[in-house]
Amino acid sequence: MIKEDIRNFLPADVPEEMEKSFLENFEKTTNGSGRLMLFAGDQKVEHLNNDFYGPDIPGEDNDPEHLFRIAKAAKIGVFATQFGLISRYARDYKDVPYLVKLNSKTNLVPYDAKDPYSQQWFDVEDVVRFRDSSGLDIRGVGYTVYLGGEHEHSMLREAARIVHEAHLRGMLAVLWMYPKGPFVKNQHDPHLIAGAAGVAACLGADFAKVKVPYDQEGAFVPELLREATTAAGRTGVLCEGGSKMDEEAFLRELHEQIHIGGSRGNGTGRNIHQRPLEEAVKMADAIYAITCENKGVKEALEILNK
Amino acid sequence: MIKEDIRNFLPADVPEEMEKSFLENFEKTTNGSGRLMLFAGDQKVEHLNNDFYGPDIPGEDNDPEHLFRIAKAAKIGVFATQFGLISRYARDYKDVPYLVKLNSKTNLVPYDAKDPYSQQWFDVEDVVRFRDSSGLDIRGVGYTVYLGGEHEHSMLREAARIVHEAHLRGMLAVLWMYPKGPFVKNQHDPHLIAGAAGVAACLGADFAKVKVPYDQEGAFVPELLREATTAAGRTGVLCEGGSKMDEEAFLRELHEQIHIGGSRGNGTGRNIHQRPLEEAVKMADAIYAITCENKGVKEALEILNK
Amino acid sequence: MIKEDIRNFLPADVPEEMEKSFLENFEKTTNGSGRLMLFAGDQKVEHLNNDFYGPDIPGEDNDPEHLFRIAKAAKIGVFATQFGLISRYARDYKDVPYLVKLNSKTNLVPYDAKDPYSQQWFDVEDVVRFRDSSGLDIRGVGYTVYLGGEHEHSMLREAARIVHEAHLRGMLAVLWMYPKGPFVKNQHDPHLIAGAAGVAACLGADFAKVKVPYDQEGAFVPELLREATTAAGRTGVLCEGGSKMDEEAFLRELHEQIHIGGSRGNGTGRNIHQRPLEEAVKMADAIYAITCENKGVKEALEILNK
Amino acid sequence: MIKEDIRNFLPADVPEEMEKSFLENFEKTTNGSGRLMLFAGDQKVEHLNNDFYGPDIPGEDNDPEHLFRIAKAAKIGVFATQFGLISRYARDYKDVPYLVKLNSKTNLVPYDAKDPYSQQWFDVEDVVRFRDSSGLDIRGVGYTVYLGGEHEHSMLREAARIVHEAHLRGMLAVLWMYPKGPFVKNQHDPHLIAGAAGVAACLGADFAKVKVPYDQEGAFVPELLREATTAAGRTGVLCEGGSKMDEEAFLRELHEQIHIGGSRGNGTGRNIHQRPLEEAVKMADAIYAITCENKGVKEALEILNK
Amino acid sequence: MIKEDIRNFLPADVPEEMEKSFLENFEKTTNGSGRLMLFAGDQKVEHLNNDFYGPDIPGEDNDPEHLFRIAKAAKIGVFATQFGLISRYARDYKDVPYLVKLNSKTNLVPYDAKDPYSQQWFDVEDVVRFRDSSGLDIRGVGYTVYLGGEHEHSMLREAARIVHEAHLRGMLAVLWMYPKGPFVKNQHDPHLIAGAAGVAACLGADFAKVKVPYDQEGAFVPELLREATTAAGRTGVLCEGGSKMDEEAFLRELHEQIHIGGSRGNGTGRNIHQRPLEEAVKMADAIYAITCENKGVKEALEILNK
Repeated sequence: MIKEDIRNFLPADVPEEMEKSFLENFEKTTNGSGRLMLFAGDQKVEHLNNDFYGPDIPGEDNDPEHLFRIAKAAKIGVFATQFGLISRYARDYKDVPYLVKLNSKTNLVPYDAKDPYSQQWFDVEDVVRFRDSSGLDIRGVGYTVYLGGEHEHSMLREAARIVHEAHLRGMLAVLWMYPKGPFVKNQHDPHLIAGAAGVAACLGADFAKVKVPYDQEGAFVPELLREATTAAGRTGVLCEGGSKMDEEAFLRELHEQIHIGGSRGNGTGRNIHQRPLEEAVKMADAIYAITCENKGVKEALEILNK
Repeated sequence: MIKEDIRNFLPADVPEEMEKSFLENFEKTTNGSGRLMLFAGDQKVEHLNNDFYGPDIPGEDNDPEHLFRIAKAAKIGVFATQFGLISRYARDYKDVPYLVKLNSKTNLVPYDAKDPYSQQWFDVEDVVRFRDSSGLDIRGVGYTVYLGGEHEHSMLREAARIVHEAHLRGMLAVLWMYPKGPFVKNQHDPHLIAGAAGVAACLGADFAKVKVPYDQEGAFVPELLREATTAAGRTGVLCEGGSKMDEEAFLRELHEQIHIGGSRGNGTGRNIHQRPLEEAVKMADAIYAITCENKGVKEALEILNK
Repeated sequence: MIKEDIRNFLPADVPEEMEKSFLENFEKTTNGSGRLMLFAGDQKVEHLNNDFYGPDIPGEDNDPEHLFRIAKAAKIGVFATQFGLISRYARDYKDVPYLVKLNSKTNLVPYDAKDPYSQQWFDVEDVVRFRDSSGLDIRGVGYTVYLGGEHEHSMLREAARIVHEAHLRGMLAVLWMYPKGPFVKNQHDPHLIAGAAGVAACLGADFAKVKVPYDQEGAFVPELLREATTAAGRTGVLCEGGSKMDEEAFLRELHEQIHIGGSRGNGTGRNIHQRPLEEAVKMADAIYAITCENKGVKEALEILNK
Repeated sequence: MIKEDIRNFLPADVPEEMEKSFLENFEKTTNGSGRLMLFAGDQKVEHLNNDFYGPDIPGEDNDPEHLFRIAKAAKIGVFATQFGLISRYARDYKDVPYLVKLNSKTNLVPYDAKDPYSQQWFDVEDVVRFRDSSGLDIRGVGYTVYLGGEHEHSMLREAARIVHEAHLRGMLAVLWMYPKGPFVKNQHDPHLIAGAAGVAACLGADFAKVKVPYDQEGAFVPELLREATTAAGRTGVLCEGGSKMDEEAFLRELHEQIHIGGSRGNGTGRNIHQRPLEEAVKMADAIYAITCENKGVKEALEILNK
Repeated sequence: MIKEDIRNFLPADVPEEMEKSFLENFEKTTNGSGRLMLFAGDQKVEHLNNDFYGPDIPGEDNDPEHLFRIAKAAKIGVFATQFGLISRYARDYKDVPYLVKLNSKTNLVPYDAKDPYSQQWFDVEDVVRFRDSSGLDIRGVGYTVYLGGEHEHSMLREAARIVHEAHLRGMLAVLWMYPKGPFVKNQHDPHLIAGAAGVAACLGADFAKVKVPYDQEGAFVPELLREATTAAGRTGVLCEGGSKMDEEAFLRELHEQIHIGGSRGNGTGRNIHQRPLEEAVKMADAIYAITCENKGVKEALEILNK
């Protein structure tokens, strides 16, 4: 039985025969909260091996199965990663809720050397067929949009179509919205982030992952998020987790993003997987508690320290 | 019962079985006047959040639902915005007459840094399917053409096909015609605007939105519009609303555009939505009165001051 | 009953079931002469409003309907213009013989600033469907090829396919053949024009519109055309009408092009439409008389002075 | 009845039901010799009118029908020219064995100014349909590959597909293999030519037309061909005929190419068509005698002097 | 009967009806070892004729049939080469296990002059049809990905789709993973190689061929491979064979790559084919013994010296 207010998240391009699928998908994935805890695991392409191997990273993180072990043991909304990586492990991780990231690029070419283009690898139909033939629990699709460069037009087109095609099939669509290129002076500018969030709304996304806004001293101030979360309208804003930081600070910030800034979730990778399995699972559970179970920071910390 | 002279607006590529749909659509949308009041709401991509948040803009304009509230409460021809934004709100705004803007780009890259390309996001068939599955009142499609740059050929091709495909399905097609790039010295040159309007006619558009022509001192002179409105032939010229200005001056100018310049409507965004809801609705109603109800400036001002 | 020698103009890629259509089409369009009088009306895109509005141009030429009025009242082979413009007027001009110009570009970017690309807007199939659903008398399709630039490969491919697809459907194909770009020193070089005409033959065109050749003093000499008209083989060479000139000189030159130079027609726009309706019709009739009715200059001048 | 050793030339991608067609096609075209005499007639695009009109060229060569007259009267393997040119004459030249050259470019842009791209105009399926609807004797398809430039990837892809699709339909595939661009210092380097011939083998071509190798003094030495003819494996190497030269020297060189260098034929254009019809036919017959009838130079000269 | 642990290599995008085909294919190709001995024969395009003709290369290597003779006589996992080359010889080499390399480029343009793009020539469906119509023993497909350049997005997309489409048809997919371009300072950097191997995992590849890692003195150290072989997860890492070297050193290194570095095979070309047939076959057999038969270096050397 779908809660009545979940229907507010139902886009008009979901056809009647798919409404139930979409709504059940949405309710289950957000735990009925309307908020999404996205466990981001697409960095093996985006950052090559930098996030998985190095002095402060536990050895087990270098094995891609680490991500699947976390995704299986922890409470998460979705585990977002590439189609191919899912295909290599998912027979042993059937119950993980997946979101297929449809594009990715490496970090070999710096953003200031060339405008980035991360092209779509698969169509939504490929994902649907994969889901149906494998029996996997694939909930949605994701796509990164780089605004401001010479490939913006290709990416806007791909994004708009992906969102719509996902809706046609009852799936969720999440967009990563990142202005880049020589005319973007400050990626953490609250007004720019609000612009990017508004574009995601015009693309029809269910959720949009954005950078966190900073004030002029470069500090995160949750109130600054409100321009973006308002401009995004019915598209939920997810804050990027970013590089690894202190657990308590992370959880406190997350709580403020939601309850002061108006965000509707988060996309976190390194702050989860750059820990040994058991710690990583607890961290994911704590993030989930705040995001989708309406818990406070104190309760989340208790999960962490169990 | 379609008025006889409305048939003059029926293009030959509307097939026989769609003639009635097209004509009813046209008559209803223009209130039988042959003129279009287009409420432009595509700026969340085109201008990011600049038009929706700032010192002189009411806070409610930052929420995209503001646009839908206006479109629902006011008299308008069509509300033009992106497919995705429509999909997020239209279940609660079923009676709004929509026009789906099929392309959009952000303003991050300046026009003088790179020739603009705003690629088509959706096909007319996607819009038709959306209309039919959702039951929304979608009347037409829109597309921006940037003339004069390295992507002109792609945009002319997309525009020509969109107009034709809209006609095949009985829908209206509106083109935004903007010469851009290093060889365009003055966007408000009456002769250049007439050229752009003529291109729209060769593309078969029902309406073409253009810049307003200025004289050599940079002042709007309605007589200067006549070159363009004649060159456009049976394609109706819509004048761009531009940035927010004094209400009375705006309405007076609109009246002159139509009755002296020969325009057949207008496309107005900021001059409507950058006001609190009630004022915005009155402004839209006043614009509609002049455009589609043959009212004078005085009557329009009465609506505004009700 | 098709005249026997008209069969010489039947290309081998017209399938058997379309031979009759093609031949009747060809015979009717050339008045059985094998020569084509093409009334060129694609300049509203190619030259923006320059050819239609200005000090020496009658006011009525600014209204696109002027072209249709001429095409209806005059004797012509075909009226060549864009699909969209035809769609806006053709319900009132059903009997005009049309040729749909499938590509066009504006003149905003100079040829020496960027190699031109005028992309195909519609497929031959779109034209066939339009013809059949509207009942219009569409005889063929046209396409401009710019040789010598970075887009030559795209344009050669589009041209070759358009010609073949037109033949598959029994329609005529006319190519505008224009070498352009930094390596083209003299567009009026007879040898270069012969090369362009030969390319049109290799593309299978029924007719090819080319520049007129000049001698080293820049004067037109009809004998210089023979290299091109021979090199074009069975593809008929049409000489470009160019900018408006004295009527008698124009008609004399046309007669020499055909009877000395071996051309098989002409493509004329400005020399017709930049006149008031009645004069324009007479000029078109005079051109037609020389081109398709085997009349001499004197007889043509009589038509003009009637 | 196909000779047994002809089966060695049967590629594995010819499907069983097409084996007989391919083998008969191959045997007939090579006169059972496994060697191909290709009459090259694609220069009207490749060289514009330079090869057909000028001080040392007979006037009749300017008429494209000259090529067809030669092809009809002479012994040849195939007459290679563009689809469109075939379409204009072939109704009167039904018995000529044709090879459709699927791409071509003009020589307006020098190779050192811009990397060449000669895009495919037609698909093999278009050729098959043309062959079947017209009843013409079309034996195969041809395509030029420019190695070493920015479009190499597009051309390799098109070439590979064309060869395979020709085989699927029982047709021969000939590739023109020309390294070009700033990194190609010497087009006549034997090692480079061997590389190009090896690429043709990897593309699956039946025959590959290459430049002739020169020694360090720029002289043709037939032994230098052996690296290429060996590297090409089962793909037959055709030497380019090049610009017109003394008949006896030409025929002697051709004989050495085959019997010392190991080539399997030649592609000759100017050395044939830049002569009056009767002489051209004799020259073609002499070339054919050496290539496909195992005649010596003396016998070939007798044909020439008949 | 498939061994149980072979099922670990079964990707989730192999549909149920293809599981048996895939697993049998995998088991047979790896001799049940999970390791692949890939005989690389794609250099005729990649290096033109450099690897096949020269002072230290036996004359027979210039004939492409040399590769097929080796592939037939030796123990190998797969012989990887281009579709077209297979088509020219495979009727006489029906029992060779083939892997079709789907893209290739020449070495004419240096990597530092232009970012490389090696475009896909054929679709997996073309390969399947070829396999089925010819009865050849085609086991899989291969594709080279150049990371770090302006065409990375096209290549990632093609690679992702090829891997998935191969799995849909029960075939193996091998990726060559090579970071290139101005931002790649050291191709033998272990961390970079691990990144590339991780990308292959995200693309879903069964095997990924990479450069061998060097330490800071430029020496191969097998322990350095472990970062990459771990990061690749269930995707098997194949080390590139590289240029020809001493047999014993080669075999020792191969053994260390597998047993210390964790690689799952190798891709070797020049170290095999740049030898007379008999020696080449022994070398291939020795490599196969270590890779797929769990033999030690001593046993492999015995094969070599038989």
